Amino acid sequence: MNHRNIAPTPPMGWNSWDCYGAAVNEEELLGNARVLAAKLAPFGWEYLVCDIQWSEPTADSHEYHPFAPLCMDEYARLMPAPNRFPSAANGEGFKPIADQVHAMGLKFGIHIMRGIPRQAVHNNAPILGTDATARDIAASYSICPWNTDMYGINPDAPGAQEYYDSIFQLYASWDVDYVKVDDIANTEYKPQTPYSAKREIEMIRLAMDRCGRPMVLSLSPGPAPIANGWHLSQHANMWRMTGDFWDQWDKLKGMFDYCEKWYAYVGDGCWPDCDMLPMGKLCVKKANQADGGHMSNFTPVEQKTMMTLWCIFRSPLMMGGELTSLDDATLKLLTNPDVLAVHRLGSHPRQVMRQGNFRVWQSDGAEKTYTALFNLGDETTAFPALEQLGLAEKIAKNLWTGEAIVLKDCMIAPHGAMLLETQA
Amino acid sequence: MNHRNIAPTPPMGWNSWDCYGAAVNEEELLGNARVLAAKLAPFGWEYLVCDIQWSEPTADSHEYHPFAPLCMDEYARLMPAPNRFPSAANGEGFKPIADQVHAMGLKFGIHIMRGIPRQAVHNNAPILGTDATARDIAASYSICPWNTDMYGINPDAPGAQEYYDSIFQLYASWDVDYVKVDDIANTEYKPQTPYSAKREIEMIRLAMDRCGRPMVLSLSPGPAPIANGWHLSQHANMWRMTGDFWDQWDKLKGMFDYCEKWYAYVGDGCWPDCDMLPMGKLCVKKANQADGGHMSNFTPVEQKTMMTLWCIFRSPLMMGGELTSLDDATLKLLTNPDVLAVHRLGSHPRQVMRQGNFRVWQSDGAEKTYTALFNLGDETTAFPALEQLGLAEKIAKNLWTGEAIVLKDCMIAPHGAMLLETQA
Amino acid sequence: MNHRNIAPTPPMGWNSWDCYGAAVNEEELLGNARVLAAKLAPFGWEYLVCDIQWSEPTADSHEYHPFAPLCMDEYARLMPAPNRFPSAANGEGFKPIADQVHAMGLKFGIHIMRGIPRQAVHNNAPILGTDATARDIAASYSICPWNTDMYGINPDAPGAQEYYDSIFQLYASWDVDYVKVDDIANTEYKPQTPYSAKREIEMIRLAMDRCGRPMVLSLSPGPAPIANGWHLSQHANMWRMTGDFWDQWDKLKGMFDYCEKWYAYVGDGCWPDCDMLPMGKLCVKKANQADGGHMSNFTPVEQKTMMTLWCIFRSPLMMGGELTSLDDATLKLLTNPDVLAVHRLGSHPRQVMRQGNFRVWQSDGAEKTYTALFNLGDETTAFPALEQLGLAEKIAKNLWTGEAIVLKDCMIAPHGAMLLETQA
Amino acid sequence: MNHRNIAPTPPMGWNSWDCYGAAVNEEELLGNARVLAAKLAPFGWEYLVCDIQWSEPTADSHEYHPFAPLCMDEYARLMPAPNRFPSAANGEGFKPIADQVHAMGLKFGIHIMRGIPRQAVHNNAPILGTDATARDIAASYSICPWNTDMYGINPDAPGAQEYYDSIFQLYASWDVDYVKVDDIANTEYKPQTPYSAKREIEMIRLAMDRCGRPMVLSLSPGPAPIANGWHLSQHANMWRMTGDFWDQWDKLKGMFDYCEKWYAYVGDGCWPDCDMLPMGKLCVKKANQADGGHMSNFTPVEQKTMMTLWCIFRSPLMMGGELTSLDDATLKLLTNPDVLAVHRLGSHPRQVMRQGNFRVWQSDGAEKTYTALFNLGDETTAFPALEQLGLAEKIAKNLWTGEAIVLKDCMIAPHGAMLLETQA
Repeated sequence: MNHRNIAPTPPMGWNSWDCYGAAVNEEELLGNARVLAAKLAPFGWEYLVCDIQWSEPTADSHEYHPFAPLCMDEYARLMPAPNRFPSAANGEGFKPIADQVHAMGLKFGIHIMRGIPRQAVHNNAPILGTDATARDIAASYSICPWNTDMYGINPDAPGAQEYYDSIFQLYASWDVDYVKVDDIANTEYKPQTPYSAKREIEMIRLAMDRCGRPMVLSLSPGPAPIANGWHLSQHANMWRMTGDFWDQWDKLKGMFDYCEKWYAYVGDGCWPDCDMLPMGKLCVKKANQADGGHMSNFTPVEQKTMMTLWCIFRSPLMMGGELTSLDDATLKLLTNPDVLAVHRLGSHPRQVMRQGNFRVWQSDGAEKTYTALFNLGDETTAFPALEQLGLAEKIAKNLWTGEAIVLKDCMIAPHGAMLLETQA
Repeated sequence: MNHRNIAPTPPMGWNSWDCYGAAVNEEELLGNARVLAAKLAPFGWEYLVCDIQWSEPTADSHEYHPFAPLCMDEYARLMPAPNRFPSAANGEGFKPIADQVHAMGLKFGIHIMRGIPRQAVHNNAPILGTDATARDIAASYSICPWNTDMYGINPDAPGAQEYYDSIFQLYASWDVDYVKVDDIANTEYKPQTPYSAKREIEMIRLAMDRCGRPMVLSLSPGPAPIANGWHLSQHANMWRMTGDFWDQWDKLKGMFDYCEKWYAYVGDGCWPDCDMLPMGKLCVKKANQADGGHMSNFTPVEQKTMMTLWCIFRSPLMMGGELTSLDDATLKLLTNPDVLAVHRLGSHPRQVMRQGNFRVWQSDGAEKTYTALFNLGDETTAFPALEQLGLAEKIAKNLWTGEAIVLKDCMIAPHGAMLLETQA
Repeated sequence: MNHRNIAPTPPMGWNSWDCYGAAVNEEELLGNARVLAAKLAPFGWEYLVCDIQWSEPTADSHEYHPFAPLCMDEYARLMPAPNRFPSAANGEGFKPIADQVHAMGLKFGIHIMRGIPRQAVHNNAPILGTDATARDIAASYSICPWNTDMYGINPDAPGAQEYYDSIFQLYASWDVDYVKVDDIANTEYKPQTPYSAKREIEMIRLAMDRCGRPMVLSLSPGPAPIANGWHLSQHANMWRMTGDFWDQWDKLKGMFDYCEKWYAYVGDGCWPDCDMLPMGKLCVKKANQADGGHMSNFTPVEQKTMMTLWCIFRSPLMMGGELTSLDDATLKLLTNPDVLAVHRLGSHPRQVMRQGNFRVWQSDGAEKTYTALFNLGDETTAFPALEQLGLAEKIAKNLWTGEAIVLKDCMIAPHGAMLLETQA
Repeated sequence: MNHRNIAPTPPMGWNSWDCYGAAVNEEELLGNARVLAAKLAPFGWEYLVCDIQWSEPTADSHEYHPFAPLCMDEYARLMPAPNRFPSAANGEGFKPIADQVHAMGLKFGIHIMRGIPRQAVHNNAPILGTDATARDIAASYSICPWNTDMYGINPDAPGAQEYYDSIFQLYASWDVDYVKVDDIANTEYKPQTPYSAKREIEMIRLAMDRCGRPMVLSLSPGPAPIANGWHLSQHANMWRMTGDFWDQWDKLKGMFDYCEKWYAYVGDGCWPDCDMLPMGKLCVKKANQADGGHMSNFTPVEQKTMMTLWCIFRSPLMMGGELTSLDDATLKLLTNPDVLAVHRLGSHPRQVMRQGNFRVWQSDGAEKTYTALFNLGDETTAFPALEQLGLAEKIAKNLWTGEAIVLKDCMIAPHGAMLLETQA
C-alpha cells in the first residue's frame, strides 16, 4: 500500500506532550481518549497519540532524566513502563491500551526516537532474527542533542534494517496506527558526516511497509530542510516544518513564513506539519508549574487565527491541551463544521498576498474558493488590496460565524483572521 | 493582468548566448529568427531572445571587457550599440528588429542586468521624470561578481522604482515580449546586508505591470534559493534553478537533483528553468575557438535524455545552438510532436522513483499518464521496479519512436531515457 | 631598511578622524599640529595624521558622499582638494603642509584607501611609467563595503605594482612619514575569491621599500585575522585588531579580549593597534551633532583604564580628540611620564590572569616589573589572587600617582585600573 | 609550582602510538624504554609515553572497538588492562611500570581521553569523595567523534572537578610525569553549545596543580584554535597545532604553515607541538599491514627537513618509531648534538622569509644566530635572497655536518633543509 493512501486527509487527533510532557500514564491516556471519542470524534478527530518516553519509569515532567534506565525487551526494543502503564505488564506492550482506544472508535499512535537504546549498546543486546548485536549497528557519533536515550543507527551495518523491522513488527502486533518518529526530521544540525537521517527515514519507511499494518508516519522535530521536500513526501505522511511550537505569538506569527515555504508540498497524502495546537490547559506536569499547568497564553483571537491557518494550509490537527478539562470555548473552536470543511476539502492551498503584516491564503473547494485573511500587526486595520484580489464587493460566507457579508472596508482585529467562502 | 496568465505553458524559443556569447549582432539575430519562424515555430517555438551586452560596442566573444563604455541614453537607459545593430541608430532602439521579428510571427525578447549602469552613476545621469540622479539610487555595495556594467539599485531611494519604470516603458515602446533579467535569481551570494535581490525583483514586477505590455519575466542566473519559491512564483514566469548549463554530462546529471527540489513549483504560469538547450553548433564566437565553434558535446542519447527531462518537467525550452547551421538530427529532436505534447499538456510533474542511478518522472495528461525513465549510470541496464511502479506488462507508447511496447525487461542505454504514454 | 626598524617603539601622535571625520582642512590640521608640538611632543607624541578623504572637495562630516568626484592627477593619483587644503593647489600636494609640520619638530602622516579610484577606472586613466591603464589593473569585484572611492587592484595585472610605486613616490616627494592604509587589514569579509588583501599589502610594502623614504605603515580597519599575524608582522608596523573604536564602555571592555589574542605579536617594530584614543572633544563635524561635537563619553576612570591598557600592551597611541580645545584633565592623562615609560620601555607584555571581571597584565622593565590591574566589573572590589600573583604585601609604586603602596586588600573602582611598578 | 616551570625546554621522548597504535603492551613499553635509556637519553630524550586505550583488554591495532568494555575501578577511573600490562594487576595500576622506567633514569607518561567513561555513566558509578555519580557529571551531548570510550564532563555539575581531581590523584600515586590528554585541543569541531573544552582544560590544570606531583600537560589533537593561544599557554605545556601527523610529504609541507601561525607562542615553558616524529619502523600492529609495519615513507632528506623544522621551532620531540628495531641512520638523525643544541638553546624562533617554496627560519643562541633554510619545492635550487637576509658571503657552520661553509650559491635539494649557525 502506497503510504500516500494512508492519510488521504490531514490527520486529526490528540497528543499527550503539551499537557503531560514525558510523564503521561495509562489513566490519563484513557481519560483523554474518552473525551476525544465523545466530543471530538464526531467532527473527524480520531488519533490518540502517546508521546515521548513511555519506557522511562521515573519520568515525571517535561524534563528528561539523563541516562535513566529504560524498560526494554531482550532484543533492544523499548517497552512501556508498567508502573506508568499497568496493562503493559508481562510483555503486553501497548496492545491492551490500543484495544481500548479502538473500542472507542479511535485510532492509536505512539512516539519513538530514531535509533537504538544506548543501554542496549552498552549491554550489547542481540538484534532479533540476526547474528548482529546492538553494538554492531549503533552509530556512536550520531546522538540526539537533547535526549540521552538512543544512538542513531548505521544504515550500512548488517542488522540495521532488521532492527527497524523488529520494532515495527512489535508495533504492528500492538495494533498501532500512527508512529511519530523523533530526532529525525531536521537533518541539518547533525555535524558528523557521513551521518544523514535520510537513510534512517528510508529504513523506517521500509520497515513500516513490511510490517503489514498501515500506519501514519509523522517526523519530528523541525525545521525539516526544504531541500528535502521530495524525499520527505516519498517516505512520510507528515513532517514538522518548525521547532517545537508553543502558545507564544511570535511563534504563531513565524509559522506563516514556514507555510509560505512549504505550501507547494501539501496534498496527495503528505502534510507538512504546523505541530500541535496548544489550546486549553497545558503543561499540567511541568516542573516549575506547581499549580498544575496553565491555560493557553493565546488570546481567543489568536486561537482562531491559529485554527484558521492550520485549516487553510491543511496542517495535521493534533490537539495539545488536556481534554479531561476541556472548556466550552476551546471545544467550539475545534468543532466548527464549516471551518473543518476547509481543512478536509480545500485543495491546492497557497499564499496569494503578503504585504506588510497582511497575509492572504486561498484554497479551492468544490465550485468555491476558500480565502483566509490575516492581520499579523498590532492594530485593527482595514484590509488592503481586496480589489486586486478580486474580492471587493463580493458576497462571502464568514465561515467562523456562518453569516453572509459583503467584502468592503473589511476590518480585522490585531493578530486576527477571517475565513471566507466565495463562489468560484 | 496577472503575470501567471502571460505564460500559460512554458515558453519556447531561441536565445543567442550559447552560440554568439556577448557578441550577437542584428544580422545574426534576424538570420536565426528566419529559421526559427520557418522550421520551429510550427511546433510552438516562438521567442527570439537577444542575450547580454547588446549595448557594448566592442563585445566580440563570450568574455566581457571590464568597464567598457556602453551605449546609453540621457536617462541612464542602455541602448543597442548601433555598430552591431544598425537599425537601432538614431534612438530607435530594438523597435525595428522587434517589428521584423513580429512580422515573422514570432515574439521578441531581450536580456538586461539588474541595476543601473556604473557609467551613469559616475556621470551622475538624471532619472527620467524625477529629480533623482543615478548616484541617488545606486547601491554601491551591490555589484555583480562577474560583470562590471551595473550597480544594484537601492530600493529605498526615491527614484529607484521610477528608474525601473522608465526602462520598462522603453522596452514596451520597442514592443518587447520577454525580458530576461540577470544577476538577480541567486540572492544567496550577496554578502552585504541589507541588500537583497528580492526587492529588485519586486520593483521589476511592478514596472512590468505598469508598462502596459505583457512580457514574460525570466530571472537568471541560478541557483535560485528554494526557500524563495513562493516569492519567485509571485513575481516571475521562470527562474533558473542552476548556474549556467553547458554541454557536459555532469551538469545534465546534476539537473535531476534540481528538478527534484523544484518540481512542486511547476505550473500555473510559473516555470522553474533548466536553462538553454546546448544542442547543435555552439560557441561560434568563443575566444579560444578559432575554428568557429563546436558541435554539442552531448551524444545523441544524452540530447534525447535532456529533451525528455526538460519536457516532462515542463522547463522552458530555449534552444541555444545556432539555427542558421541547424542539422537535421537536431531539428528532429526539437520537433517531435508527441514529445512536445508532454511539455505542453503534462500536468503535475513529479519524480516518483529515485534508486541508485535510476530516476522515474511522471506527469498527467488527459486520461493518460506520461512516464519518463532515466538511466544516469554508465551501463546498459534493465530498469528496476517496473512492477512497484505499476508499469510491468503494461502496453505503452514510446513517444520518441511512436511504437507500442510492452514494458518488460525494459533495457535503457547509459545516460539514456525513455518517454512513455500509458492510459490512466 | 627593514621596516621593523622604522618604529622601534609604538608610534604616538594625533589623528584627525575622531574629531573632524572626513572633513578636516588645512587650518584645522595646522592648528592641532601647533598644540601637538607645544604640549605633547615633549612627551613623545610626534605624528600628525590627516585621515580619510582629503581628496573629496565636498566632504563635510563623518559621512561619505557616494560617488563624489575626487581630486586626482592625470595618473590616477588622488590629490588634496585645494578648497580644503589651499597650499596643495597647483599640484603641490601635501608637501607644503608636511614642511610646516616638520618645522614644528613633528612627523606627518596621511590616510589612503587601498586600490585605485573608481573614477580613474571609468575614465581609463594611464598608469605612470607603464602602458597599462586604470581599467587594466582594477579588480572590479573587490570593493570596499562602506566607501565608494576605489576599486581594489588585481595583483596579477601588469602595471599593478607600478601604480602602487607611483603613489608612494608621490608621497615620498611630499615627505610623508606615515601612511595609514584603509580597507585592507580585515581580509575576512571579502567574499569573492580569488581576491585577498594579502597581495595588496605585499605590493604596498614593496612600493614603500622602493620609494626611498622610511614611512610607518599602519593598516586598517580590523579585525585583522589572527591567523595572518606573521604576514602582518612581516609587512606592517601596526594593524588594527578591531573595528572602529569609540567612547563606549563595551568597546573598551571588549578590547581586552583582542589584546589577549594579539599580545604575542607585540614588539620588534610591530604594534598591534587598539585604535585612536577618543578623549577630549570628539565628532566636531558629525552631521547629527549640531552643537559642534561632544566630550568623550568615557568617565575619567575609564579614560585612565584605557590609557593603562594601551600603555602596558604597547599599542600605538594616537590621540583622537581635538587638541585646539584640549582640557587640562585630558592633557594630564596623556603626559604622565611614569605611565608613558611603561609604554616606551615595557617589554614582553602579557596577560597573566583572567578571572571573572578581573584582568592582570604585566611587562618587563629594566630590573622591574610593570603590572596593570583591571576591574572590568560594575562593583568596587578587592582584587583577588594577589598572593598567587606574587604581589601580596609587596611594596609597589602606583604609576598614576607616584606614591608607594603596599599591595594588600587592593580595592579597585568599577571599570578602573591600577598601574604598578615593582622591583624584579 | 607554575606549570611553565615544569618543561623549561621542549619535552623529548618516545610515544607508543606510531608503532603500536591502541595495542601496546608492557613488554613493548619496557623494551622500548631500555633502548631509550641506552641510546637516546644521553642526548636529552627522557619521556616514555604509553598512548591511548591501555584500559581496553581487546585492543589489537590502530583501530578502536566501539563500545568495548574497559577496565575501571569502582570510582569510574580507568585502569590498565592486566592482560596487556600484567604488573598492573590487583589495582597496582601503572606504578610498577613507572618504577621500572624511573629506575632507568627516564620519566613516565600516559595518555587519557577527556571525560568520564560511558560505561561508568550507564552503570552510574560513584565519584570518589562526593555524593555525585557519573550520570550527574556527564555531558551527554559532548562526545568524541572518533572514539566511544567517554562522555565529556559538564563543568557546572557538582562533582565534576572532584572527578578530575580523583584521576590525577591516582596518576600521582603511580608517579606519572606526563599526561597527554586527548579529544581536547581542537575546541572548534564541537557543535553543541554550551559545551567548550576550555572549561575541561581548566579543570584538568587545577586537578594537576592539586595532585602534588609536577606533570607535563600535553593536549591533543589539533588543530588547536589560534585564537585560544593565550588560554592554552596559561594551562598546558604543549598542544597540537595540527591533526594527526604521519609520514607523508604533504603533511610535512603543511606543517610549515602551522609553525608560521604559532611561532609567537613558543617559549616560557609552552611548546606548540608538531606531533610525533614518524621515523624508523611504524605501524607494527596496523590491521592492514600483515608484514608487521613499514619503514617511514619519508626519504632521508625529508627526515632531516622534519628534524630541522621541529628543532628550530622548538617543538616537543617525541620519537614515534619502534626503538627496539632502531636503525643507525635514524639514530644518527636523533642524536646530532649540534642540531639538538638549537632545539634546547635557540630562543625566539621566527620565520623570516617565505617566498614561493622557500622558507627561512631563525632563532637566537648565545651570541649566535641559528638559521634554517628550507626548499619545499620539487627541484634542486639555489637559495634566493641570501643577500637580503644578510647571509651572503658569510661563514657559517653547517650543523648537520659540522663543516664551515661560505654562503654563496647555496644549493638545496628538493624537500631539503640546511641548518646553520652564524656569529651574531
